[in-house]
Amino acid sequence: MTTPDATGDQHHVVIIGCGFGGLFAARALKNEPVRITLVDRTNHHLFQPLLYQVATGILSEGEIAPAIRDIFRNYPSLRVVLGEVEHIDVDARTIHVDEFGQPLDLHYDSLIVAGGAATSYFGHDEFRHAACGMKSLDDAMYLRGQIFGTFELAEAEEDDEARRRLMTFVVVGGGPTGVEMAGQLKELSRRALRRNYRRINPLDTRVVLVEGQDGLLASMGRRLSRLTERDLTRMGVEIHLDAMVTNLDDEGAVITQKDGTTTRIPAATKIWAAGTRASGLGSLLAGAELDKAGRVVVEPDCSLPGHPEVFVVGDLMGLSDLPGVAEVAMQSGAHAAHTIVRRLKGEPPKPFRYRDLGTLAVISRFRAVAKIGPLQVGGFIGWLLWLVVHVTFLTGFKNRFGALTRWAISFVGRGRYERALTGRWVAGTGRTTKSA
Amino acid sequence: MTTPDATGDQHHVVIIGCGFGGLFAARALKNEPVRITLVDRTNHHLFQPLLYQVATGILSEGEIAPAIRDIFRNYPSLRVVLGEVEHIDVDARTIHVDEFGQPLDLHYDSLIVAGGAATSYFGHDEFRHAACGMKSLDDAMYLRGQIFGTFELAEAEEDDEARRRLMTFVVVGGGPTGVEMAGQLKELSRRALRRNYRRINPLDTRVVLVEGQDGLLASMGRRLSRLTERDLTRMGVEIHLDAMVTNLDDEGAVITQKDGTTTRIPAATKIWAAGTRASGLGSLLAGAELDKAGRVVVEPDCSLPGHPEVFVVGDLMGLSDLPGVAEVAMQSGAHAAHTIVRRLKGEPPKPFRYRDLGTLAVISRFRAVAKIGPLQVGGFIGWLLWLVVHVTFLTGFKNRFGALTRWAISFVGRGRYERALTGRWVAGTGRTTKSA
Repeated sequence: MTTPDATGDQHHVVIIGCGFGGLFAARALKNEPVRITLVDRTNHHLFQPLLYQVATGILSEGEIAPAIRDIFRNYPSLRVVLGEVEHIDVDARTIHVDEFGQPLDLHYDSLIVAGGAATSYFGHDEFRHAACGMKSLDDAMYLRGQIFGTFELAEAEEDDEARRRLMTFVVVGGGPTGVEMAGQLKELSRRALRRNYRRINPLDTRVVLVEGQDGLLASMGRRLSRLTERDLTRMGVEIHLDAMVTNLDDEGAVITQKDGTTTRIPAATKIWAAGTRASGLGSLLAGAELDKAGRVVVEPDCSLPGHPEVFVVGDLMGLSDLPGVAEVAMQSGAHAAHTIVRRLKGEPPKPFRYRDLGTLAVISRFRAVAKIGPLQVGGFIGWLLWLVVHVTFLTGFKNRFGALTRWAISFVGRGRYERALTGRWVAGTGRTTKSA
Repeated sequence: MTTPDATGDQHHVVIIGCGFGGLFAARALKNEPVRITLVDRTNHHLFQPLLYQVATGILSEGEIAPAIRDIFRNYPSLRVVLGEVEHIDVDARTIHVDEFGQPLDLHYDSLIVAGGAATSYFGHDEFRHAACGMKSLDDAMYLRGQIFGTFELAEAEEDDEARRRLMTFVVVGGGPTGVEMAGQLKELSRRALRRNYRRINPLDTRVVLVEGQDGLLASMGRRLSRLTERDLTRMGVEIHLDAMVTNLDDEGAVITQKDGTTTRIPAATKIWAAGTRASGLGSLLAGAELDKAGRVVVEPDCSLPGHPEVFVVGDLMGLSDLPGVAEVAMQSGAHAAHTIVRRLKGEPPKPFRYRDLGTLAVISRFRAVAKIGPLQVGGFIGWLLWLVVHVTFLTGFKNRFGALTRWAISFVGRGRYERALTGRWVAGTGRTTKSA
């Protein structure tokens, strides 16, 4: 056991997690008189809203997942630890990390817990084996192999019924992730795969989108919801509203409507974009109260009751039912950092106020819906807004420039770069493509 | 068993393998009155000379591995089959393919076998577990995880000796692949990883290059060989000439000099860029004579003795000891295609003549050596030649444009896109980075 950070004169801030919450907390502390240790279980920040573009072959994994160490190369007093947090002792102000099998104890003066969220199968954990989530880079890489792999299997398939199953994609969840995934699967089959096959017609690809509520993108209001449904329907996406997925297995999905009618849809690929649950990190905070979604109940300034030096931000934060979006994580992460700085200066904390900067979802090439304050727009104007926002928030110049290049090639042109099936594909189909 | 291609009026050309040989054969047949079936075990063509750039995080996998179906989307009479060739019956003119577990028989009028080469461990097959080859996209992806993963392990390591082992890379083989790999590992540690770590100094990275002959890039002649050695030595690469790797295991490598002295080098990462052997496809050609390198002995027109309708091209072709380079595969693939067309027109075959267009190897950013006919250049001029040749030969506009973008970012700037450690890293270190 080593405690290399138990000494040192400067105020020591430990940040757990380098999603949007942790990233914005660390950035807000750049020029402050503090030492920072950033702990993450992966070596990269992940721009989660673009995971669907990696899964459908538009962007490469590196373009949405810059290395954490590289983001913070000009932060000399920030150290990155790659490890798994195993225990948090809020009384001793110490976190215990498993760093490649070795225990590492980090003593902190202030702690920011930004654990994020994981996929929730709503109590149906057995669905996990049949439907891939959309939370991590591994999820996206698995789906990429699955999507391009099933088209290969379909081209080789003699049986009509089996081929239809291979070319059917069921997307569960009509929020932004599900809508964007369904739209891109249709774009893929309508444009990028055109003239690629000799026996199947990619236009026969069936995309089924299932949503439990009575509208898609419910948080964006009725008008944009209807606009999204109209656009997706015109593209050929089958939308099931007021419907639940009541079974998922290797063969396909069973959809149950509100009125009790059930439909069995044979489908090789099922994508779970329905639910998230707070990260398990909340349960490591001894004595912390969790709400029914597993989020840590915090004070108005994002701190843990009784522990003003511990902050919980982002998807793990239970505060006045804020939505689980990147913007909340960014703002609450920065707020926690500012509160630490205020305390160091002897100033009182301020309550966190979320400024809703709007919501966006891409429907197809050149079409998106956007709700920004009172402004509700769809179509090409919505898409331009989407482009500006995503280019602005992508981390780092080279990622922005690279993503813009890819988008020009994928949206203006018709090609997709990332279609290579590698050893990963094994997981999806039992077949390896590794050359000997 | 299905024989969908046993009928049809047009002359049917079956091409096995879509490396440089198969790709150039198919292209040469584009506007000819033939049907083509292209069989490959992967879904992508692979630009092998740039594998080292994927392994070191400069290019993404898709940029050097375009989907075969997409390359040939405008070849309506070309069909792609993704499968493993299990048997070739040259008398019945039929090949037997395992297509996702289903048998598929393809009858041909002409056959082009472009099976390529695999890694040879020179009889030491046990080295395979300790040293990754550099032939497939999976090799490059594995190495990428290994390279960026060991720097993470080194940053966490307390023990000096263990840390030195983690930061040591042994590259076996002083041909272009080994030279380019060794150079890029040094570039990575000198530039791209600068200021990324707080405990290790990437400049301490040790790169050892081992070559059995008395010079690097032996095929390029003494002058360029010496120039390469000087440039790499200045960069800090340790070069062992006249030296063999006599043992390789998890801990490191044992190098034995010509005079019998042995050195043990503890090294976490060993990269095998030393030898290739012809693909096992040659042994499927019943009755064909194989040379000692396992290549199929062919007539001067690249056809199989006694079977003028069967051609063997590229690395699998045993003809007057041609070098195992992409250029030979391209030219012999095209030659086989032209010979088929001549025969259809009733013209006699011509012997294959290899035009050596030159050899190139990159040493570092802005430095390369090039031998083109009587011209032998190094330094920046050599690098410009390398750039022009590689941009010209990359398959497809979008790959060219994408690669140029990445090179600008990596060579002119200092960043590398592709550093994300995903589930793949498991293979290298026993650790998964998959987030829950």
